[in-house]
Amino acid sequence: MTCVRTPAELDAADPLAPHRDLFVGTESDLVYLDGNSLGRPLRVTAERLQRFVTEQWGGRLIRGWDEGWFELPTTLGDRVAEVCLGAAAGQTVVADSTTVMLYKLLRAAVGLRDDVRRTEVVLARDDFPTDRYVAASVAEECGLTLRWLEPADDPAQGVTVEQVEEALGDRTLVVLLSHVAYRSAWVADVEQITAAAHDAGALVLWDLSHSVGALPLHLDAWGVDLAVGCTYKYLDGGPGAPAFAHVAARHHERLTQPLTGWMGHADPFAMGPAYAPAPGVRRLVSGTPPVVGMLAVQDMLDLLAEVGMDAVRAKSTALTQYVVDRAAGLLPETRLASPRDPDRRGGHVTLTHPRMREVTAALWRADVLPDYRDPDGLRLGLSPLTTSFAEVEAGMQRVRAVLDHP
Amino acid sequence: MTCVRTPAELDAADPLAPHRDLFVGTESDLVYLDGNSLGRPLRVTAERLQRFVTEQWGGRLIRGWDEGWFELPTTLGDRVAEVCLGAAAGQTVVADSTTVMLYKLLRAAVGLRDDVRRTEVVLARDDFPTDRYVAASVAEECGLTLRWLEPADDPAQGVTVEQVEEALGDRTLVVLLSHVAYRSAWVADVEQITAAAHDAGALVLWDLSHSVGALPLHLDAWGVDLAVGCTYKYLDGGPGAPAFAHVAARHHERLTQPLTGWMGHADPFAMGPAYAPAPGVRRLVSGTPPVVGMLAVQDMLDLLAEVGMDAVRAKSTALTQYVVDRAAGLLPETRLASPRDPDRRGGHVTLTHPRMREVTAALWRADVLPDYRDPDGLRLGLSPLTTSFAEVEAGMQRVRAVLDHP
Repeated sequence: MTCVRTPAELDAADPLAPHRDLFVGTESDLVYLDGNSLGRPLRVTAERLQRFVTEQWGGRLIRGWDEGWFELPTTLGDRVAEVCLGAAAGQTVVADSTTVMLYKLLRAAVGLRDDVRRTEVVLARDDFPTDRYVAASVAEECGLTLRWLEPADDPAQGVTVEQVEEALGDRTLVVLLSHVAYRSAWVADVEQITAAAHDAGALVLWDLSHSVGALPLHLDAWGVDLAVGCTYKYLDGGPGAPAFAHVAARHHERLTQPLTGWMGHADPFAMGPAYAPAPGVRRLVSGTPPVVGMLAVQDMLDLLAEVGMDAVRAKSTALTQYVVDRAAGLLPETRLASPRDPDRRGGHVTLTHPRMREVTAALWRADVLPDYRDPDGLRLGLSPLTTSFAEVEAGMQRVRAVLDHP
Repeated sequence: MTCVRTPAELDAADPLAPHRDLFVGTESDLVYLDGNSLGRPLRVTAERLQRFVTEQWGGRLIRGWDEGWFELPTTLGDRVAEVCLGAAAGQTVVADSTTVMLYKLLRAAVGLRDDVRRTEVVLARDDFPTDRYVAASVAEECGLTLRWLEPADDPAQGVTVEQVEEALGDRTLVVLLSHVAYRSAWVADVEQITAAAHDAGALVLWDLSHSVGALPLHLDAWGVDLAVGCTYKYLDGGPGAPAFAHVAARHHERLTQPLTGWMGHADPFAMGPAYAPAPGVRRLVSGTPPVVGMLAVQDMLDLLAEVGMDAVRAKSTALTQYVVDRAAGLLPETRLASPRDPDRRGGHVTLTHPRMREVTAALWRADVLPDYRDPDGLRLGLSPLTTSFAEVEAGMQRVRAVLDHP
């Protein structure tokens, strides 16, 4: 016997449901299913930004640099690490965009190798474009070769440990992969793939953009070398909020990157003749930290710390399971392009259908906001602290209506 | 006969004086002489940021990308170009930090050369650290040589046309210089130096960080190839607001840079297999634009457009002249380390004295905020729209008091 609970019953039983009211716009009828692209703002964030202008920036002026801004890349990095990454302090910075940080970390990987014969970057053909484009760019300038992992026939199937193991060898420099795939939400086995890479003498660089803030991470326990991620998805940092980059402490002594700005210098205000990198992960910082863009994420990190990542993951899994189950009954003509196994499924679900491009456009006109991914994917992003089961149900009902009445 | 006007008289006669009330904190007794490091916020900016969170980010959510955010690097770039740079649209983007943009443009310069024997970067030994460090980094990775312009004995004297001409040759790839020197405020002759570089077959890359928003610029008329600058100094964009980068249209077809993120792709949402650069200057964009950090500068650009850069420069010159004249009488034991010629002097004035480090510390304790630059420089930044003559006088009186009573 299967007991099917209504969305209202599920929301009533959800211990995280009360947090939804803390976010801007959750009182409206709009159905937001794209929190994995841009998270909703917390209501307190509006006030934080206003206060920042009048009190910190306007009131403290240049003194703000001595009173916290200068250290913000590392203090905020440590907070991300503590709340979300399962990593000790001193290994994470927040700065730049994910693209810029990916570039720095790939260049850092080249600098970390002991053996110049290690020239291969292992990466996935269907990974997010920036990861592929930046890898190609670094490969060209550093004389590396890209070793592509080809996608499986099943679009729900992502990179497996076996696939990576087959590609690894004594030429492998670094394995660059996403923890959660941006289309399918496939969860790669970070621990096993990292171990396999290390066994082959290679490094790993994990892109955590679609997992941070949705899945518990254990970077230290997993032995991850390098990682990057976004703060504007599940961390609700606002459009274009800066990236974080993580480098395991054991690599710091030999850590280099080519964007050598004064803010990554060991003694910035000496303004000396030559660049000397700051100790530790601080040397990943290049220019002046984007302080205004680093404000909002602090509110979300506080909330995630209060709730705990295990509770967040439980809600996330319940939401995606709801979509998987409901799609089978309500949208039988669609195909699930995300893993059925909840352990292998991240925070979003992709359903495919030949008409999904026009379906997405019709949904947007009806104030239902999912994302569309070429060629035929409707991507439903379910943000554990802001998405309700009733919202998901309303969105799926609207998909049904659009498919019925184009 | 010299007619000396009191600060109160000068403020009363200043057509820009009423604008001072538009900025946060100008009602307080604090003396702010560091607007060339971090400009004060406009009062309207606090409300803009709050409204952004509740209305645009929170209300429009992911739709914001289609409604202006995606284009913001180029639309905001065009606005900077129109109001401040004297440059036609389509040549300027706002994104990243100044360090990151400097790196991209130096790499772009390497990509633009016709002759691989051009391997020299001409730059100044006493330029801002980031410029020197990034040039050294790019030189190392691209096999370039740095050709240093040595400082003159007089600290007020910056790079001259003759100095650059002597360094130029058929090996010169690019001349990288600051328009306004960060210590002395020396104004380099952009037009003549650019012409000399072109005569030698070289490119110019101007760092406009200390001139944009303080001096009128005419990048198109001057034939400038490449330029970068900050938006958090005289453009009041807030701590760590993103940089702008400018590339003359004639170079766009061959423009390349290695941080190839999806936002600089010709068709980002196709998410295709290989990177194909967007047309024009957009290809300088790498990751997701830092939208929250790009809000404040829009208010200041509106105000600068209203006032006009010639009026801003006139006020700026009057303020720095006041400091030069007053220092001669009130602070005779200090030395002027900025040009006496107002045409060669930017928006700040540096006074040197062996005790300036402790003087600066004492001033800060008294709510007078100038900047200090090693080894002995008190740098007085005078922001044309927020600094009053009375404020400058109060600051200089305090310097007198501190020198008298250590």
